[in-house]
Amino acid sequence: MNLKEKIAIRAKPIDKTLQKYLKIREPTKLYEASAHIPLAGGKRLRPVMALITCDMVGGDSEKAILFATALETIHNFTLVHDDVMDDDDLRHGVAACHTIYGLSTAILAGDTLFAYAFEMITDSDIDDRIKADLVQNVAYVVRKIAEGQQMDINFEEKETVEPKDYLEMIRLKTSILFGAAAYGGARIGGTNEDEARELENMATNVGLGFQIWDDYLDATASEDVLGKPSGSDIRQGKRTLLVIEALNRANSKQRRRLLEILDSDNNDEDIVEAVNIMDECGALSECHIQANKYLEGARKVLLKYPESEARTLFEELLEYMVTRGH
Amino acid sequence: MNLKEKIAIRAKPIDKTLQKYLKIREPTKLYEASAHIPLAGGKRLRPVMALITCDMVGGDSEKAILFATALETIHNFTLVHDDVMDDDDLRHGVAACHTIYGLSTAILAGDTLFAYAFEMITDSDIDDRIKADLVQNVAYVVRKIAEGQQMDINFEEKETVEPKDYLEMIRLKTSILFGAAAYGGARIGGTNEDEARELENMATNVGLGFQIWDDYLDATASEDVLGKPSGSDIRQGKRTLLVIEALNRANSKQRRRLLEILDSDNNDEDIVEAVNIMDECGALSECHIQANKYLEGARKVLLKYPESEARTLFEELLEYMVTRGH
Repeated sequence: MNLKEKIAIRAKPIDKTLQKYLKIREPTKLYEASAHIPLAGGKRLRPVMALITCDMVGGDSEKAILFATALETIHNFTLVHDDVMDDDDLRHGVAACHTIYGLSTAILAGDTLFAYAFEMITDSDIDDRIKADLVQNVAYVVRKIAEGQQMDINFEEKETVEPKDYLEMIRLKTSILFGAAAYGGARIGGTNEDEARELENMATNVGLGFQIWDDYLDATASEDVLGKPSGSDIRQGKRTLLVIEALNRANSKQRRRLLEILDSDNNDEDIVEAVNIMDECGALSECHIQANKYLEGARKVLLKYPESEARTLFEELLEYMVTRGH
Repeated sequence: MNLKEKIAIRAKPIDKTLQKYLKIREPTKLYEASAHIPLAGGKRLRPVMALITCDMVGGDSEKAILFATALETIHNFTLVHDDVMDDDDLRHGVAACHTIYGLSTAILAGDTLFAYAFEMITDSDIDDRIKADLVQNVAYVVRKIAEGQQMDINFEEKETVEPKDYLEMIRLKTSILFGAAAYGGARIGGTNEDEARELENMATNVGLGFQIWDDYLDATASEDVLGKPSGSDIRQGKRTLLVIEALNRANSKQRRRLLEILDSDNNDEDIVEAVNIMDECGALSECHIQANKYLEGARKVLLKYPESEARTLFEELLEYMVTRGH
C-alpha cells in the first residue's frame, strides 16, 4: 500500500465525521455554504497527523477523531475567509464559497465552521481537563493564524520582505495548525504537557518545511504534478521565500529583471527566465536546503519513540510533506 | 443610585478585562481593528446579566467575569462581521471596523474576537466540567446567531415575512446570547443544568422583548431618546415585527400606502403617516402587548428566587430592557 492509500484510510473517519456534522439544516443556504469547501476534498493532512501522533505516543486514536475533525474544520474556516479576502475564485478544484453563495453567506459559513470546531472538541469522549486545554490551544492558534494572514496582507504593501519575517508569517498562517494537530493528538494520547509541546514544535517545523517546499514546487514541478500551471506564484508576483532569497542573492542585473517579471504581466518564457535566475543565484538550492533542515530536525524527534506502525507512517508523512513531487 | 449607574458599576470589571485582553500587539493593524468596536462602548447588558444571574443563584460573580467578558466579545465579533455584511458605516457612535481598516482586516478582527472569547472562558477559574459545558453552549449559540443573520439576509429577498418567522429570526440573532449569559452565570453560580436552562429560557424571552421593544421605540420615541433619527427602520424599509403586524392588520388602502412608504425614498411626513397607520391598525399596541408578555413571563421566573440585591437589579434590568425610553 502506498502512502496516499494509507493516508486515505486514516482520513476516512474524518470524512465521516465531517459529513455527520455538516449535514444540511435550516437555513439551508448557510449550511450548504458551510459544507461546500470541507466536503470538496483536501488531503486531510492535519487531522491525519493528529491521529498518528495519538497512536505513536501509545494512545487510542479513536478518541482523537473529533478533535482531529475540529482541526480540519478550523483549516476550512480559514480557507473560506481567506478566499473572501483574496477574492480567489477556486479552491480544491471547485468554486470558492463566496463565488457561489455571496460575500455575506461566505463570512457566516466561515463563522459556522469555526463554531462547529469547538462543538466537536467538547463533544469528544476525553477528560474535561484535556478538553479545556485543547479548546484554549486551538483558540490561541486561530488567533495566531489571523496574525499570519494580516502579516501576509501587510507584505503586499511592502517593497521588500526579510526572510525571517516571511518565515514568521508562514509559521503563523500555515505551520502552527500542524503543531496544534500533534499537540492535541499527544495530549489525547496521554502525554504530559512538555512532551506534547516538543511534538507540537516538531510538527510546526514540518509545517514550515511543507510551505517552503510548496513554494519550491510551484517553480520547479510540472503542471502534471501541481494540478495547476507551473510558476503561478511568479505569475502573481507573490513574495515567497524563493523570491525573497533570489532578490537577496541575485546580482543587480538579475534582480532588476526578476522584479520586472514579478511586477508585470508575463508569459511562459518570462517564467522560465525567472526560474533560471532563481537557480543561478542559488535561491532554489537554498530553499531545498531549508526545507530539508526542517525535515531532518523533525525526524530526530520521531526517533525518540519506539518503532511502531504509527511512527513509520509519521516518518513517511513528513517525507511526503517536504519531498513530494520530486 | 439609578439603574444606569448600577449597570455601569457592574460593567467595570468587564471593561477592565476587555482592556487587558485587547491590548495592542503585532501586527498592530489587526489588534487595533479587533479592539476598535469592543472598546468604543456599548451597554454591556449581556455580561452584566451573566454576573447578576450568578449572584442571584447564590454564586460568586467574581468567578463569572471572564465568562461574561467572553460573551461581550462574542457580541462584538458578530457586530463587526454584521457591519461588513450590511455595509453599515456607524456602530456605537464610531466608524464601523471595516470602514477604517478595510474588509479583510475587519473579517480577521471578528475572527480574532471570536477566538479570544474561548481563551477567556478557558482562562476562567472554574471547574473544567463547567468550562467544557460553557464552551459547548457558546459555540452552539454562535452557530445559531449565524443562522439568525442568514434568515435576516433571506428575508430581504422575500415579499412577506410571517410574524413567527420574524420572531424566530430575532430569537436566534439577538435573544439567545442573553440566554447564554443567564445560563453561564447560573452554571458558574452552582445551579444544576435544569435550573440553568430555565433561566436561559427566561433570558432568551427577555431578549425577544428587548428586540420587539427596540422596533417599537424606533417608530415612537424621539431622536433625543434614540440617539438617532426616529423612524430609521421605516426609512430603510426594514421588515420589523411592527411592520409585519401592520401589513397583516391594515386595510388594503393603508397597506398599499405603507408598502409605498417602506419601499421608496421618504420624507419626515411620510414617516409620521406610516407610524399613524401602524397605530390605527393596532400594530403598535400589539407590539407593546407582546413585549410586555415576555417581560411578565420573565418576572415570574425571577420570583422563584429569594429576595436579594441581585434579584432586584435583575428585575430593574428586565424592566429597562422592555420599557426603556417611555
